[in-house]
Amino acid sequence: METIIQKSRRVFIEEYPVEIVERKGLGHPDTICDGIAEEIVRNFTRFYYEEFGYPLHFNLDKAVLVGGRSAPRFGGGRVLEPIEIVIAGRATLSFKGNERVDTPIGTLILKSISDYVRRNFRYLNPAEHIIVTYRVRPGSQDLVKLYEKWKKTGIPLANDTSIGVGYAPLSDTERACKSIEALLNDKDFKRKYPGIGEDVKVMCIRKGNKIKATVAMAVVDREVRNKEEYLNLKESVKEEILREVPKGFKFNRELEVEINVADDPDNDIFYITVTGTSAEAGDDGQIGRGNRANGLITPMRPMSIEAPAGKNAVSHVGKVYQIASSIIANKVIKELDYLKEIYVYLVSKIGKPITMPQIVYVEYLPEDESVRNIESEIESVILEVLDSLPKLWIEFMEGKHRTY
Amino acid sequence: METIIQKSRRVFIEEYPVEIVERKGLGHPDTICDGIAEEIVRNFTRFYYEEFGYPLHFNLDKAVLVGGRSAPRFGGGRVLEPIEIVIAGRATLSFKGNERVDTPIGTLILKSISDYVRRNFRYLNPAEHIIVTYRVRPGSQDLVKLYEKWKKTGIPLANDTSIGVGYAPLSDTERACKSIEALLNDKDFKRKYPGIGEDVKVMCIRKGNKIKATVAMAVVDREVRNKEEYLNLKESVKEEILREVPKGFKFNRELEVEINVADDPDNDIFYITVTGTSAEAGDDGQIGRGNRANGLITPMRPMSIEAPAGKNAVSHVGKVYQIASSIIANKVIKELDYLKEIYVYLVSKIGKPITMPQIVYVEYLPEDESVRNIESEIESVILEVLDSLPKLWIEFMEGKHRTY
Amino acid sequence: METIIQKSRRVFIEEYPVEIVERKGLGHPDTICDGIAEEIVRNFTRFYYEEFGYPLHFNLDKAVLVGGRSAPRFGGGRVLEPIEIVIAGRATLSFKGNERVDTPIGTLILKSISDYVRRNFRYLNPAEHIIVTYRVRPGSQDLVKLYEKWKKTGIPLANDTSIGVGYAPLSDTERACKSIEALLNDKDFKRKYPGIGEDVKVMCIRKGNKIKATVAMAVVDREVRNKEEYLNLKESVKEEILREVPKGFKFNRELEVEINVADDPDNDIFYITVTGTSAEAGDDGQIGRGNRANGLITPMRPMSIEAPAGKNAVSHVGKVYQIASSIIANKVIKELDYLKEIYVYLVSKIGKPITMPQIVYVEYLPEDESVRNIESEIESVILEVLDSLPKLWIEFMEGKHRTY
Amino acid sequence: METIIQKSRRVFIEEYPVEIVERKGLGHPDTICDGIAEEIVRNFTRFYYEEFGYPLHFNLDKAVLVGGRSAPRFGGGRVLEPIEIVIAGRATLSFKGNERVDTPIGTLILKSISDYVRRNFRYLNPAEHIIVTYRVRPGSQDLVKLYEKWKKTGIPLANDTSIGVGYAPLSDTERACKSIEALLNDKDFKRKYPGIGEDVKVMCIRKGNKIKATVAMAVVDREVRNKEEYLNLKESVKEEILREVPKGFKFNRELEVEINVADDPDNDIFYITVTGTSAEAGDDGQIGRGNRANGLITPMRPMSIEAPAGKNAVSHVGKVYQIASSIIANKVIKELDYLKEIYVYLVSKIGKPITMPQIVYVEYLPEDESVRNIESEIESVILEVLDSLPKLWIEFMEGKHRTY
Repeated sequence: METIIQKSRRVFIEEYPVEIVERKGLGHPDTICDGIAEEIVRNFTRFYYEEFGYPLHFNLDKAVLVGGRSAPRFGGGRVLEPIEIVIAGRATLSFKGNERVDTPIGTLILKSISDYVRRNFRYLNPAEHIIVTYRVRPGSQDLVKLYEKWKKTGIPLANDTSIGVGYAPLSDTERACKSIEALLNDKDFKRKYPGIGEDVKVMCIRKGNKIKATVAMAVVDREVRNKEEYLNLKESVKEEILREVPKGFKFNRELEVEINVADDPDNDIFYITVTGTSAEAGDDGQIGRGNRANGLITPMRPMSIEAPAGKNAVSHVGKVYQIASSIIANKVIKELDYLKEIYVYLVSKIGKPITMPQIVYVEYLPEDESVRNIESEIESVILEVLDSLPKLWIEFMEGKHRTY
Repeated sequence: METIIQKSRRVFIEEYPVEIVERKGLGHPDTICDGIAEEIVRNFTRFYYEEFGYPLHFNLDKAVLVGGRSAPRFGGGRVLEPIEIVIAGRATLSFKGNERVDTPIGTLILKSISDYVRRNFRYLNPAEHIIVTYRVRPGSQDLVKLYEKWKKTGIPLANDTSIGVGYAPLSDTERACKSIEALLNDKDFKRKYPGIGEDVKVMCIRKGNKIKATVAMAVVDREVRNKEEYLNLKESVKEEILREVPKGFKFNRELEVEINVADDPDNDIFYITVTGTSAEAGDDGQIGRGNRANGLITPMRPMSIEAPAGKNAVSHVGKVYQIASSIIANKVIKELDYLKEIYVYLVSKIGKPITMPQIVYVEYLPEDESVRNIESEIESVILEVLDSLPKLWIEFMEGKHRTY
Repeated sequence: METIIQKSRRVFIEEYPVEIVERKGLGHPDTICDGIAEEIVRNFTRFYYEEFGYPLHFNLDKAVLVGGRSAPRFGGGRVLEPIEIVIAGRATLSFKGNERVDTPIGTLILKSISDYVRRNFRYLNPAEHIIVTYRVRPGSQDLVKLYEKWKKTGIPLANDTSIGVGYAPLSDTERACKSIEALLNDKDFKRKYPGIGEDVKVMCIRKGNKIKATVAMAVVDREVRNKEEYLNLKESVKEEILREVPKGFKFNRELEVEINVADDPDNDIFYITVTGTSAEAGDDGQIGRGNRANGLITPMRPMSIEAPAGKNAVSHVGKVYQIASSIIANKVIKELDYLKEIYVYLVSKIGKPITMPQIVYVEYLPEDESVRNIESEIESVILEVLDSLPKLWIEFMEGKHRTY
Repeated sequence: METIIQKSRRVFIEEYPVEIVERKGLGHPDTICDGIAEEIVRNFTRFYYEEFGYPLHFNLDKAVLVGGRSAPRFGGGRVLEPIEIVIAGRATLSFKGNERVDTPIGTLILKSISDYVRRNFRYLNPAEHIIVTYRVRPGSQDLVKLYEKWKKTGIPLANDTSIGVGYAPLSDTERACKSIEALLNDKDFKRKYPGIGEDVKVMCIRKGNKIKATVAMAVVDREVRNKEEYLNLKESVKEEILREVPKGFKFNRELEVEINVADDPDNDIFYITVTGTSAEAGDDGQIGRGNRANGLITPMRPMSIEAPAGKNAVSHVGKVYQIASSIIANKVIKELDYLKEIYVYLVSKIGKPITMPQIVYVEYLPEDESVRNIESEIESVILEVLDSLPKLWIEFMEGKHRTY
């Protein structure tokens, strides 16, 4: 394990002239894919754990969601054709403890999706609006063998040579992007404004001090009787955002908000849906095509292309190291308050313990240039987090981490 | 319309030396296909009727059911992989009345299947145990045009040149076959013996006066704790059958019953299931591969190969004439009590009114050779039934006919 | 084994006032399903045989074909969306001889379909016009065990309690029906008239001495430049049928032929296709929904509902006994020339040798009432054929039998 | 359009202590998805262009590839189950010019995939090894309307608010990564070493001056008779790489190469395949989950998450701006030789001309600090490239750009 920790020569993100950040909310087709994949992971993990004491090999990180067809209209329309979701991946199909046990892969997948949708959507009915198919085959023998080795030592071995990138803290623009979506998908807020669909997409562009948030918000047709109610809803939501979100700014920023800019009331074009998501009518999705592990798309920050959603949290470093690098970054920023910003890169080596990356590379930006021993303080945080990684899957099983 | 009514030179079925009759019960994979197809027909018919005043063109009479995988065991096992059902057919996807209306084909199909399964099965959960996909495209222009012509006159035109065959009455063997399944799938009987699955298949072979019923009865694993309870259940069911079914015999018949003959208790081989149907573990099915329209498979009687299930009851003569010929036969037998047996063949001609078959061919067997005017009495029944055919779809929509 | 052979009291088929017979030709969607299923059977049989010395357990007798979409036009149109074929069934996925061998089920299925289509169709290109998916799972343990027992004795055990029905000879109407399709799908005839598509459906209705053949013949658009050529083709084909087919009549019959009666030249409605089959545009199909094992649909004759296509020819009596009963019937008629007609029923018993049906039931109609020993002569033919059944799968593998 | 061009405060990439770069080669499951998606785009574009004069609306940028099952062995093994590819997206299904034309979406997709695979793979046979299904529906009305507007002015309007990122030049590490794969997939090289499969994945990690390339190279089983030939092949390939690739370095770098590190000859574990790609046995893929538009995965460089593959090159800025930013960056570096490195960000605004991004943000690193007018020279390159974007789709149709 080679550890390189050095002062960054990057510009602090808040001082960039431009920032571009996006969040695809809960009901966006890509996020739906990520969300159900993670629910499936939890349930596979729990099943294996309960039957066998630890999660066996699996990896269900590919999925495509095919949008349906619908005929929304104010007051309530119809779904014509359902959303289709195809899940693909690998899993241990059967194993022998005292007796042979078969993994109920079909039931686990169907139930996970049904449960997830019922818990997170109010108007999307899995029995009528979603078709699920899946293709799950055993993993390749080599990878499964490699995976199984961790049982001996308790320390999982990296399943691949892969990179994780994390940073902290979020910028004002990034937090604005997340908090707008969080507000619109807040349970209480939705009780106040039931017309807000779960499919909320936020793009924030900062130029200088001005943050402009462009919000695409699916509206639920049955909750809005006509054009006026629709326009009123948009106006109210905008006001609420402008009231709430700026409270979180650390720097001197101005917020501007636009909602559903493609609306054209004169031609009766509005963003209305039957179920609250554009997936009902033609927007397709995939795992790993939306938010990165910190819930954002940040083209100006280093990012990994690896999709954490659907991966086993034991040794699949495409997931473990993305979460770990974020945990390290956040922990460092929280504990070492003389730092302004930190970037953490972890590179695994296939077959080596996940607690021992082949490279740890850190860039930090101190607030106060005079502080000493920064590197060693950072390093001790790193070691602490790496040491805890063999238990990360338990935290995932308990729903403590989110990757989308 | 050419009508040929003549005395039969066939041997009366009850005098055949051998009779072979089969019924695939409610939970058999082929019957599941037929049953859901008919539920879909009812719901499509109703949708079109409510939106437009009459059923538009559709035909959903192809389906394959792919059996799942399961791990049953006494006391309760698991479904591992779901049943997959693929529905194929034609329907009117959109139409213009005062405004354009789109048919919610996906929702209608998914909801029909979900409702049908919930209503007819106790342990089969559509959300976890069944995957549905469908391919529904518009019908060919010519056939749709032909179909639409009936709006003008109120009399549907035959969609095809096709044949329907019906007969009456059922023989003792045939009634035994039906009543065994009816008993085992009776709601009250199932409350008494909850271990009896919905998948009951009955084969009755009569040699001379002896009817031997071979019953394959799926047993629900969670309702039977062990081998003894299983064997006891079989014994009780056998006794009940032997007590109840012979009550319906008209001739001097002996009944013998065997249940689950492939069981091998010494090697722990029993017919147990998690959900009550063999479809959960590998038995596949199709529309139209099981019972004929009278609920039986009767290789020694004339039969049509046409599958009524899934067809539109307006003008799809593969359905209409099978039902019509049965109605005629039963009505004749009921009203003209000097007849022992009757066979009715109806042949349609594509494009002609369904009330006017190109051929009606009837063979009857009189009880009493001296009766006169038989032909004209039969003919008047025929005409009466044919006249009523344009309303048959309404009776189907109301659930008054069963085709499987 | 109980053998009942008795003189029939049925009317000789040629003396019925009415006869109704149908044949769905090579290119009909149902027949396509049957044909590819049988090609798959041959290739599975051959694979197992070459690897292991005999065919292992399999059964691939469920399939649905979903019609495509096309835009035909005189001179040559386009296929818009392909035909989709879903194959479902059971097979032995792997087995251990000296070493473990895995069945290449996917490759066998895809290659079978591709080969079959290329061999039998001139304009249907599997790479562009057909999508194949399949669901093949292992058979249920009990049935596989039962199946495997035949290795010991060399005599397969019936996989089910099932019935086979055969008869001979074909009537004039039946032969007309078959020979019309045979002519139109004859390779030389097609070279002369390349516009004739493979999808030819023939319905023959005899009333008295008059046989009326209604032919639905898909025409290949690129081979016919305009309306005139189309109408000329129909006229020529009609003349050829009228010249050739009556040569085969044994009785005094008149033949009348109509082709594509739904054509409406004034409204430019013709039966043209891009590929020669209606499957390209909306006609769906299934295994076992078309011709019976003798190539015909004959509602006035006894028939089995069992679909032979796709079944293993070793012990799957739904196939073996249908073929066997036909072989017996034909052999009897050929060898015992004093018989006019014979019907043969074979009933298997699950788990018993296929050479020993539980019932053989035969009805014969003698030409010459004075002949003696008919029963014993028939019986010896029966025994000879039954004895040969354990080798039937080899004949199937070599392509010597056709079931559709 | 706001243009911000400024000197970068980033460290020059070659001076980073660490660099991590990956390339998923031609035969990797993710790259297969990207490759066929782009072939489909070319063929849809050409079809619309030929029928209508310009590409109509479409977007086919979602796909999942489900790996098959195989049994490779030295000398030649078998594919057991095919790869399944599911394509999802939107397209214009029919349109009216002088007459109604229907898009042959199925034929276009199937033919594209078949052609692409035949052209790029030697042992992967689409007819036997690949199942394709697709779900293509019309785009949402609003987006289609927006798209259609460009016909009037000839300048496409951005279909979304999106960001493109490009940079130049590639670093030594990046070029090493690309050229290793290029060498191994070079047609001549493959003739010399036919055992090299198309599925080559290269990970390059630079620490200081040392570049370590880890190559995963699928080997084609039939081209390698045994362990010795396999090991010899690896050795030869390694030597060739070490001889060829360093020729391209601009800085003082050392190259180290490891091939198939997971091999374990003692336990007979090798990376062999029947078809040359791991997709045959369990490695799944998706569009947009592999290489970015410049053919590399570069977590330490700014990247876009947008998947260019499958998108329409007319106005889908997720594609257009990624290519455009790369073109600008490369052109600037080529023409202004006093620059060391440049990063280009383009941000679109939905509904605005693609020639007028809402933001152009450029960071450059000069070689020579003294040069003047850098910004204006860069700007003129930018304007030139933006002006040419309305013709970009033609270049894509002609195969001049690659996005994976």
